[in-house]
Formats: sequence, structure tokens, C-alpha cells
Amino acid sequence: MVIQIDFQSDEAIYMQLRNQIIFSIATSALREGDSLPSVRQLADDVGINMHTVNKAYTVLRQEGFVTIDRRRGAVVSLDLDKERALSQIRDNMRVELARAHCRKIPREDLYALIDEVYEEYEQAQEEDPNV
Amino acid sequence: MVIQIDFQSDEAIYMQLRNQIIFSIATSALREGDSLPSVRQLADDVGINMHTVNKAYTVLRQEGFVTIDRRRGAVVSLDLDKERALSQIRDNMRVELARAHCRKIPREDLYALIDEVYEEYEQAQEEDPNV
Repeated sequence: MVIQIDFQSDEAIYMQLRNQIIFSIATSALREGDSLPSVRQLADDVGINMHTVNKAYTVLRQEGFVTIDRRRGAVVSLDLDKERALSQIRDNMRVELARAHCRKIPREDLYALIDEVYEEYEQAQEEDPNV
Repeated sequence: MVIQIDFQSDEAIYMQLRNQIIFSIATSALREGDSLPSVRQLADDVGINMHTVNKAYTVLRQEGFVTIDRRRGAVVSLDLDKERALSQIRDNMRVELARAHCRKIPREDLYALIDEVYEEYEQAQEEDPNV
């Protein structure tokens, strides 16, 4: 798992960290049952505060991507409740879909965008020698 | 245009303001050529700093939703460069599509989600007596 933080970004560091971990799961660099690095280790590696790593892990737990195990720390464990996930995704996509609607972008272009990004993730999985 | 800011949210206030203005354009509560409130007026109405309103207007200008007119202030003016807009939207949707991919949500469910949100915006436009 490679974590890259943009310290110039307007996006909070814990959100960047959360997003990068989600990307790692989407591309299977992290899999169900894998442990995330310990809070201390990740904070040291990335050069950020332990509190920030903790916050990212807490959000990932709340969103159903990891569980916190007393001995193993944060472990990838996907809540596959599709309705709950879709409702989160709907809320978060609403702004982007509003942007698209303002620009009169037809739905078909958005379908194509979904296909394109999904294919990237699928290709990343195929190229992963651990699959 | 109704602006509602959640002061408890983790999302920066200028981003919330930007998003709400984009929603207003998507639902045609704000239209091409309409002036946004002056920075001072909006800051007073919402109870936020003028600097925050200015930042939101600057981002909207950079993203091609408004132009800044010396006399009329910020005016809705949509940059309809579809390629540029799609590339922005692709970047911003990448995280949500990663979440969906982690959850094994099929593409068809995402197509349906787009249809659902687009239909909401279209319905809001139809209900607007000014159309």
C-alpha cells in the first residue's frame, strides 16, 4: 500500500488518508482480512500525527471498511450491505451530479465515465500478482 | 436561493457554500445571467465571514460556474466545455466509484443512481414557476 499525502491540498489529511485506503481496497492492494499498519507506524511513515491516522481509521470503521481488532488493530472487513453503501454513495455523488447537470452532460456520458473508472480498477486487480 | 450551512460539519464552509450554489444552478433556482448576492450581503445573511464568501466565489469562477463582473459582481455564467467538465467530474467521482467497487456494487446500480438524481433535478426545474 502506497500512501501519498498532498500537504498543499485543501482536503483534510485524514480524508486523504481515508480515500487512499479505499483506493487500495478497490484495486485489491488491500484485501479482506488484511491488517492496516499500526497507527504509530503509519504516522511515522507518512510523517503525520497519530491523531490524524486514528481519525482516518475511525471514519473507515464507521463507513464499514475496517473493523478494529484489539490485537490485530484495523483489519479490512467490508460491510457488504449494498443498500447502506448505495445510500452513502448517492449522498456523496449528489454534488458531482449537480455539476454534471449544470453542464448539460448527458447521462450516457456519465455511464461511460463509470465504465472507464471501473475498468481501471479491474485492470489493477488483474495486474496484481497476488491474485 | 436558500443557503443552509452546517456549522458542525467537517466540510469547510466555503465548500458547503460552493456546493449549495451548484445545487441552485442544477435545479434552476439560479440561471445563466443571474447575479449572486454581493459578498457582504451573503456573509451577513448566512452569518459567516466575507472572506469565506469570497473564497467560494473564487472557486466557482475557477471551476467555470460564474464570472466576476466589476459592476454586477458574481454572475452565473456556465462554461460549457464538456471535456473539461467531465475531466473534473471524473477526478471527483473517483473516490465514490472506488467505494462502490469495494462493495461490489454493479455498474447498473450506479447508472440507476444517476438516473434517479438527474430526475430529481429535472423535476425541480419543472416545478419552478419561473420556467
